[in-house]
Amino acid sequence: MSKSAPIQLSLPVHLPDDETFQSYHPAGNQQLIESLRLAASGQGERITYLWGNAKSGRTHLLHAACALANEQGRQAFYLPLGIHASMSPAILEGLESLSLICLDDIDEVSRHPIWEEALFDLYNRVLEQDNCCLVVSARAPANGVGFLLPDLVSRLNWGIQYQLHPLSDDAKLAALQQRAKVRGLELSEEVGRFLLTRLARDLRTLFEVLDRLDKASMRAQRKLTIPFIKQTLHL
Amino acid sequence: MSKSAPIQLSLPVHLPDDETFQSYHPAGNQQLIESLRLAASGQGERITYLWGNAKSGRTHLLHAACALANEQGRQAFYLPLGIHASMSPAILEGLESLSLICLDDIDEVSRHPIWEEALFDLYNRVLEQDNCCLVVSARAPANGVGFLLPDLVSRLNWGIQYQLHPLSDDAKLAALQQRAKVRGLELSEEVGRFLLTRLARDLRTLFEVLDRLDKASMRAQRKLTIPFIKQTLHL
Repeated sequence: MSKSAPIQLSLPVHLPDDETFQSYHPAGNQQLIESLRLAASGQGERITYLWGNAKSGRTHLLHAACALANEQGRQAFYLPLGIHASMSPAILEGLESLSLICLDDIDEVSRHPIWEEALFDLYNRVLEQDNCCLVVSARAPANGVGFLLPDLVSRLNWGIQYQLHPLSDDAKLAALQQRAKVRGLELSEEVGRFLLTRLARDLRTLFEVLDRLDKASMRAQRKLTIPFIKQTLHL
Repeated sequence: MSKSAPIQLSLPVHLPDDETFQSYHPAGNQQLIESLRLAASGQGERITYLWGNAKSGRTHLLHAACALANEQGRQAFYLPLGIHASMSPAILEGLESLSLICLDDIDEVSRHPIWEEALFDLYNRVLEQDNCCLVVSARAPANGVGFLLPDLVSRLNWGIQYQLHPLSDDAKLAALQQRAKVRGLELSEEVGRFLLTRLARDLRTLFEVLDRLDKASMRAQRKLTIPFIKQTLHL
């Protein structure tokens, strides 16, 4: 096997234009959102640690923070660590020159000492800067992730920590019905609960599907019934 | 919020030059490996479905297939669907013009009808081509992932399916000791088991750490003992 330079590909990562703070359903997370808005605007805490269950909306919030920073002319970078196996830890080098760094799912690199060390080094470099904010997300508090490096855990604990409170099914249903109403669509409770039961339960998926159903119902001049939904989504 | 075009970033994804078929520990997966080699060389099955537990080496094999295709001058594309929330399903459009498409973790888009439909459409386009192979990975067989679209599941079942057999801890220990030996390092069973217990248990992480320990032990002229390892890795 040749020892030439590793092959570099480039993945077009897309910050969806509808994942903003405006489109986020706060439900008990107001303080966290305010804190992230400040970080994105260059006035927040240097380090923010955000944790919550899968599908609780962490990625939406990190996307929203990057979008706000970009809107204000600040350079932001979003990195999902779920794909660390296809990246080199060197990707973290020099990020501290940006205004905002959002690292999603940092628990994915726990028990991997080389990545943990690279994260630790990034933390230290961020703390030495005046104008860089770092926001990280994980599925558990820093003490509960299982990181190997005690120094990394202590750094992670220095920042401000927030738990993301997930939306209840009733709140998701209300959010769906409200979004439908804005579009002039009638979404009955029965149909809303059908969607919640069948589809992935994150609001991103539910809203994307609602958008598609909206267009299909307009084209077909049909109401949103369960048979119409099954037909449209090929279920 | 402006409705301008979504922000596009670009993630430098890196196919590690040491994740090849040569460096993969076959352990019961010989037939699968041979099948992937053929697919990467343009002579294999049109569709390969590869499933196994997390950390069983799926990503290594997909990297290896892309590396082999590239080495032979074929265009290959590797896409980890764990970050689908930061990508548009439109990323799948036109991929069928490549020689090899490797989609990692397709279970991540299950119960998301728009992504499932995009996958289904890609399958159909690949089947219409003469020179494109598609390799997908997931954590369970196609029937057990929970996909919504029956047509997608039936397409996934058309291809050849392989289960990836994970390495036992003893096999991982043997692989570590063999890799150490090649480098002129002595790795005792006790020290090897210490690494297996403390670190992430995938061979990728274990080998990367062994490389680092190799360099540190040469610099320090020290043997690989547990105290030396703790010191080197800051554990």
